[in-house]
Amino acid sequence: MITLDKANAPPFINWQAVIRDFEAVLGARGVVQRKEELLVYECDGLTSYRQRPAVVVLPRTTEQVAEIVKICDRHHISFIARGAGTGLSGGALPVENCVLIVTALMNQILEIDFENQRVVVQPGVINNWVTQAVSGAGFYYAPDPSSQVVCSIGGNVAENSGGVHCLKYGVTTNHVLGLKLVLPDGAIADVGGMSEMPGYDLTGVFVGSEGTLGIATEITLRILKAPEAIRVLLADFTHVEAAGQTVSDIISAGILPGGMEIMDNFSINAVEDVVAANCYPRDAAAILLIELDGLDVEVVANSQRVEAICRQNGARNITSATDSQERLTLWKGRKAAFAAVGKISPDYYVQDGVIPRTKLPYVLAEIEALSQKHGYRVANVFHAGDGNLHPLILYNNAIPGELEAVEELGGEILKLCVRVGGSISGEHGIGADKRCYMPEMFTEADMETMIWVRQVFNPKGLANPEKIFPTPRTCGEAARAHQQFPSVEKF
Amino acid sequence: MITLDKANAPPFINWQAVIRDFEAVLGARGVVQRKEELLVYECDGLTSYRQRPAVVVLPRTTEQVAEIVKICDRHHISFIARGAGTGLSGGALPVENCVLIVTALMNQILEIDFENQRVVVQPGVINNWVTQAVSGAGFYYAPDPSSQVVCSIGGNVAENSGGVHCLKYGVTTNHVLGLKLVLPDGAIADVGGMSEMPGYDLTGVFVGSEGTLGIATEITLRILKAPEAIRVLLADFTHVEAAGQTVSDIISAGILPGGMEIMDNFSINAVEDVVAANCYPRDAAAILLIELDGLDVEVVANSQRVEAICRQNGARNITSATDSQERLTLWKGRKAAFAAVGKISPDYYVQDGVIPRTKLPYVLAEIEALSQKHGYRVANVFHAGDGNLHPLILYNNAIPGELEAVEELGGEILKLCVRVGGSISGEHGIGADKRCYMPEMFTEADMETMIWVRQVFNPKGLANPEKIFPTPRTCGEAARAHQQFPSVEKF
Repeated sequence: MITLDKANAPPFINWQAVIRDFEAVLGARGVVQRKEELLVYECDGLTSYRQRPAVVVLPRTTEQVAEIVKICDRHHISFIARGAGTGLSGGALPVENCVLIVTALMNQILEIDFENQRVVVQPGVINNWVTQAVSGAGFYYAPDPSSQVVCSIGGNVAENSGGVHCLKYGVTTNHVLGLKLVLPDGAIADVGGMSEMPGYDLTGVFVGSEGTLGIATEITLRILKAPEAIRVLLADFTHVEAAGQTVSDIISAGILPGGMEIMDNFSINAVEDVVAANCYPRDAAAILLIELDGLDVEVVANSQRVEAICRQNGARNITSATDSQERLTLWKGRKAAFAAVGKISPDYYVQDGVIPRTKLPYVLAEIEALSQKHGYRVANVFHAGDGNLHPLILYNNAIPGELEAVEELGGEILKLCVRVGGSISGEHGIGADKRCYMPEMFTEADMETMIWVRQVFNPKGLANPEKIFPTPRTCGEAARAHQQFPSVEKF
Repeated sequence: MITLDKANAPPFINWQAVIRDFEAVLGARGVVQRKEELLVYECDGLTSYRQRPAVVVLPRTTEQVAEIVKICDRHHISFIARGAGTGLSGGALPVENCVLIVTALMNQILEIDFENQRVVVQPGVINNWVTQAVSGAGFYYAPDPSSQVVCSIGGNVAENSGGVHCLKYGVTTNHVLGLKLVLPDGAIADVGGMSEMPGYDLTGVFVGSEGTLGIATEITLRILKAPEAIRVLLADFTHVEAAGQTVSDIISAGILPGGMEIMDNFSINAVEDVVAANCYPRDAAAILLIELDGLDVEVVANSQRVEAICRQNGARNITSATDSQERLTLWKGRKAAFAAVGKISPDYYVQDGVIPRTKLPYVLAEIEALSQKHGYRVANVFHAGDGNLHPLILYNNAIPGELEAVEELGGEILKLCVRVGGSISGEHGIGADKRCYMPEMFTEADMETMIWVRQVFNPKGLANPEKIFPTPRTCGEAARAHQQFPSVEKF
């Protein structure tokens, strides 16, 4: 006779009853459970991790999300919110026996208030739709991830996404005024709503909490007045360090461009091979794109100063574009960089480390050395203005062992970022991908403080488990080696 | 024989033992306990509430603060941090039998890092010292409360202070990159440190938490590059509504001035009476001060547009100053406004409500009506750009009943602000002064969420009790009337 060790047995979930409850809230068409239909939900943009959810639900309203979460709470089922599924850190990666709450049908722009420069949206609204909805009146929504034509505002809020223009305008958290939330017990709460609010800033805590504290079901965004003029400058350099130094010098001169992006020689050639755009000179060690915005007179004055700084640092050629079509041409290669690398390599693994701007030359040299040591090519594309690196490590997932090897290389790059005073994530979030590196950056006390907060909002640990923080199960080796995060086991 | 009801008896504190413990950490000179020396610590800038602390301690280091807090925790004594004591909401008001932790001796600038535009300071550093320390290299610290020559950074962090330039540059929370904290159990924690950090944004929660979650003992501030040019415009109007409309129109035109301030006729005359500066025309219904900053060409272009908008709205005269001495002259009256009102009236009670900019004309008319109904004069001085009103209610504290009457009038003004979609505090904090109005703005669920967070960090309720949230003891009537905040009683 076999006796089951009850303590170690997975909790019994009566899925038939759960699905009946879900269907009572959403109707049969709002609940997805056929295996072949679930396939697409196995991963987000971090395709190297996969796990099939037990059920996918497609709510349309805050109340429906609240009911779904209450059912999960009652049956003790983990639930994970998913926006467009374009995240790069595995923040929307399912866990075993979980419910995936997909916000794709929550795609309404609920309110546009030009007078107070606010827009209220549901989480499934695509980033780019916000600007489209308000551009006629001369406004725009500033945070612009490269994926902005497909990624959702809900996902942006969860991961505190950035983008090219975050150097000047800040990341998502700087543009979220308030949130309607479904908390992990199904209660509905409102936080924030305007710039100046008394009490604790809970809006700030929720933005970037990667779904571990609840689900945002209505998001109040700040919109900005579009600038009078925009100019893009393209400078090319024979040394990548010179491009890095130029970035530092521009900021030191008190000029704050809308964005500053660097691509290295490898990325340039990947783009030229794939897009064949004749965008950038193939023999340049690096190109630097600088976008200036503001009043017309301001842009003209600043672009003269920027050109002078580029030349002082040895720029070979400087091209400038103000017309919107010409600007798009200069940006085209940068926007296509990830896709281009994806075409020349079967797979790539992208990191998202941040370093102090002034450490750019040193860190780029170190990444090159790590690349050679591990034997994998690294393409460097980065938001240079805020020191946010995106090294793309090229590999082939079909070859056993390659994923593990590039993950190790990626980890060494992240440790390097922390060593020079930086961060393991600039805009993609920690998710499932970087949780084991959290102890590199935070002390045990720091992490315990964050975990206390999670425990307050998410006491049963059902909201997006196994994300952000390391656990012995997910990071066993590292956990033992560091003898850290003892209280994480509780979750 | 008298039997003491133990449940209602104040907890017994062995002050002799406590003071011995404090002296072991700080020496005898770091502990103040003579009644006449304690007098100055009975209130902060909100002088209408007074309570003498049992003991005042003067630590110099993070470790000393941690030891003091541990002693308080062990003896179950409430403790309250106090910076310069200039706060206007009673955030540093003592409670009975409490220890006041005064940060006046923690006045060191610990680090200046121009390359990464960061400064690390102790909490007792005066706001203005930061700009003085970095201005030689062309930098400044943006948040500038009117009290900036006397208020401390620690207090600014606790109350999330604003100032004239917060329209363009944001309030304190937008300039704090990281904090070293002593938590309410005496543990030392670090949160934040740079702009882009993974994990929960706990820095944001601590800024503005008014000492209820812990004490900041090291503060990393962001410094900004000083603008190339600054110009101040002074426009005067025959109707205060026209000044309000001008502010809306400037913002709608996509111009973001460094600051925009309105003073009404009463404030103008108070300033002219007291300062005798010939600053502003005595017959104007309102004056509007607009500060523009940026590149020289940008300031010139924007000031032409601003002048045109002022004239369209019927401005009588427009004066402009670029020279730093001339600019100071234009600002002189505004900077002296509170002091001037303080000279012409025995006392004044200042409110700090926020309204949507577009509601300015309506709200000003309503405040005038309330002023007449209650029979107290109200001087209006405000950060017009962000709708942050500072109505100064004139009264005489020596006349019994006047304080209560002006508090009631102040309360009606706050309710008016909330009714038009605004907030009960823009930059002074809730403190002891506005806690009873929190239910006007927040639902029970909203407040419970905040109180959960407090309970996590401050489970014994020893860190700055009776602040921010209403309790039946402090707001008994209101509490019963609203039947709200049931869980607040726990604290």
